[in-house]
Amino acid sequence: MSALSSQPYKGTRDYYPEDKRIQNYIFATWRNVSERFGYEEYGAPILEPLDIYAAKSGQELANEQTYTFTDRGGRTVAIRPEMTPSVSRMVAAKRQTLAYPARLYSITNFMRYERPQRGREREFWQLNTDIFGVDDVAAEAEIITMADAIMKAFGAHTEDYVIKINNRKLINFMMAQYLGLDAVQAQLMVKLFDRKDKIAEDAFRDQAREILADRADEGLPKIAALLDASSMADLPAEIRNSSVVVEVQELFTLLERAGVKSAIFDITLMRGLDYYTGTVFEVFDTHPDNTRSLFGGGRYDGLVGLFGAEPISAVGMAPGSTTLENFLDVHDLVPKLKSTTEIYIVVLGDVMRAATKLARDLRNEGVNTELDITDRKLDKQIKTAIKKNIPYILFVGQDEVKSELYTLKDTTSTDEQKLSFARIVGFIKDKRRTDIDDDLA
Amino acid sequence: MSALSSQPYKGTRDYYPEDKRIQNYIFATWRNVSERFGYEEYGAPILEPLDIYAAKSGQELANEQTYTFTDRGGRTVAIRPEMTPSVSRMVAAKRQTLAYPARLYSITNFMRYERPQRGREREFWQLNTDIFGVDDVAAEAEIITMADAIMKAFGAHTEDYVIKINNRKLINFMMAQYLGLDAVQAQLMVKLFDRKDKIAEDAFRDQAREILADRADEGLPKIAALLDASSMADLPAEIRNSSVVVEVQELFTLLERAGVKSAIFDITLMRGLDYYTGTVFEVFDTHPDNTRSLFGGGRYDGLVGLFGAEPISAVGMAPGSTTLENFLDVHDLVPKLKSTTEIYIVVLGDVMRAATKLARDLRNEGVNTELDITDRKLDKQIKTAIKKNIPYILFVGQDEVKSELYTLKDTTSTDEQKLSFARIVGFIKDKRRTDIDDDLA
Repeated sequence: MSALSSQPYKGTRDYYPEDKRIQNYIFATWRNVSERFGYEEYGAPILEPLDIYAAKSGQELANEQTYTFTDRGGRTVAIRPEMTPSVSRMVAAKRQTLAYPARLYSITNFMRYERPQRGREREFWQLNTDIFGVDDVAAEAEIITMADAIMKAFGAHTEDYVIKINNRKLINFMMAQYLGLDAVQAQLMVKLFDRKDKIAEDAFRDQAREILADRADEGLPKIAALLDASSMADLPAEIRNSSVVVEVQELFTLLERAGVKSAIFDITLMRGLDYYTGTVFEVFDTHPDNTRSLFGGGRYDGLVGLFGAEPISAVGMAPGSTTLENFLDVHDLVPKLKSTTEIYIVVLGDVMRAATKLARDLRNEGVNTELDITDRKLDKQIKTAIKKNIPYILFVGQDEVKSELYTLKDTTSTDEQKLSFARIVGFIKDKRRTDIDDDLA
Repeated sequence: MSALSSQPYKGTRDYYPEDKRIQNYIFATWRNVSERFGYEEYGAPILEPLDIYAAKSGQELANEQTYTFTDRGGRTVAIRPEMTPSVSRMVAAKRQTLAYPARLYSITNFMRYERPQRGREREFWQLNTDIFGVDDVAAEAEIITMADAIMKAFGAHTEDYVIKINNRKLINFMMAQYLGLDAVQAQLMVKLFDRKDKIAEDAFRDQAREILADRADEGLPKIAALLDASSMADLPAEIRNSSVVVEVQELFTLLERAGVKSAIFDITLMRGLDYYTGTVFEVFDTHPDNTRSLFGGGRYDGLVGLFGAEPISAVGMAPGSTTLENFLDVHDLVPKLKSTTEIYIVVLGDVMRAATKLARDLRNEGVNTELDITDRKLDKQIKTAIKKNIPYILFVGQDEVKSELYTLKDTTSTDEQKLSFARIVGFIKDKRRTDIDDDLA
């Protein structure tokens, strides 16, 4: 038999401990911010009936990007490409018994059939935070404040990113009332606006003209007026006076009070998924090497109702780890991370029995301890500890066993000290407590 | 359009916050023990080429239980039904650069197409711990000691479970030399032994007779002698004197030194998967309501070599959360778990702006704070906090804003106190530190 490939499936990644540490740092930061805002973790299955995406996620996602197959019982299922339909389904199933507002978060994986490229993988990981049961724009303010808090928690500065905000109702008003488009034209125009930053100005105008058809002469200047507006105050009066603007202004007032400094209004922000019904937002990296959208979210009041329950209002967002890793890279924000193992016991000579007992005692005190059980030469044992990025080596030989004093060596410096068992435990716990205090600060 | 079903896909579960808390408790305990033994976390993709299971996992798993489909590029892929082939693939891919012994763990989900029943779900969660690069039985001793430490970490007593240990080489010796079976007969006999506890004694003997065929007269008494043996010393001399027994005895010596009291030798323990090459073990619940196997593991030295790398020895195990939850249930070991949210701010009257600021300040100090932004009546707000199992309510009204003293109420008792902002932060952090110390202890 020929050898099997050792490579992971196309578009997916293996996470070795050094990669997993970074992912765990991202997950822990997401978790930390979500829980600080009072969100509680939930989980949903990796497989769902395809129907739940077909209904509202948009054709491209449901038909072209989903990993879909028929199970042995003849059901058409999909590996989840996103979380919003799943969490909406879960809320619908317990509509009557949940406590509202329900604040929920999850951190898990998804799959989409896409061409792998920078910032995009077929298997990817997202935080999803959603608040259910609040009609008021206070819900949007909270979710966007969390988006801002997440960026800050990763060490980003206000100028490193921008949160662009728009509103689907305003978009609908703009398409139907302001530009006078029918439903088909409106949909095409939304998609065109969505691609605006990816195509040349000329191409944008030509395609806009084509969509506008016989309304082009009057429509093109109107679109130009929109694109010229850099704030809500600059918008054409027809739009500025629409009732939705009051809601948008209220949101900006709340965000200002919450100390969010990176939020701007952007009438051209559309956001791809079909289920949004109000506020939409996207966080963009401002670094020239990495201008793509980092993540986004918005209000989707219609989704829970699809599952046979009374409708319930909802606002959510979904930061992903792939784009975030790029962001941390270009802004030099990836922290230096050590192993979760705290002590590596190097065994010198025929003292394995005593070393095993010492490892056991350290573990019983809660110290993360790896024991070298290989009987290899000293230098090989030390090399393993250093390669694994373990902060401390503990040497155990005949003398140490007799004296009950062990040499603890810092692997990142020349520091070493002879300590009793109790002192070793105390030293490591103090070290850990300092780290926890740093986290809490 | 008719409503979509709000139920999860067959054999899978939705984890609402109260369910997720228990799952997170299990995951945290697994993580804790794994890291205490110096294992580092890794991650592998949810999809793998079907080939990697077809090679060595056994026919039933690869052909009948795997969620398999053809992707849009014509590749035959599977949602992983287990982790061992994936982690072996990963080790093979970095064979030359990993630090040995490599100690790796992961906590993630799997899918198998099975009839859902007690202790068995189609989507399930496992810890996988594996050690690579140690030929010696010290590796088995470490993994089984961890199995024991996991049971203890969940509060189990020595008598609540038993760790049955056998060795594939001994099984092979028993089938070929002792019973004189050919390869086909041996495989059938292994499967029969595997089902021994699930079928009647008569049925077992009848089926054994059929497999033995013309060797039945001499074979049946030999099998009876095996089944009568309750320890290694009781085994028929032919087996007791085989060289593999030395290895098994060495393992028991190491386990005794490590303080593992629940381990017993069981010549009838087979373990289903095809890739095991030496020691196999399984942990069984001893409670009469829940006698099934909780989890198991063993040595599988041949798997890494399948991926074109030089072979490397490996020992691992895979506790699952479904069987463990049943175990915790029947032994009354499920802890009472609170929300991750520490404070629920109840807002009285027109002070939302001040309450928002207070929530922000608490979050900046690292306190997990949920703010009621609904403007509902007092009793409805309180009810939400209690329903969510949040330990403290903080009342904020006109008086509190003016005096800067806030009432903090324990939701599980009648205790309440008026505290300044700094005192609230101090109180919650002390509370948390006490909980962390309890964990470290």
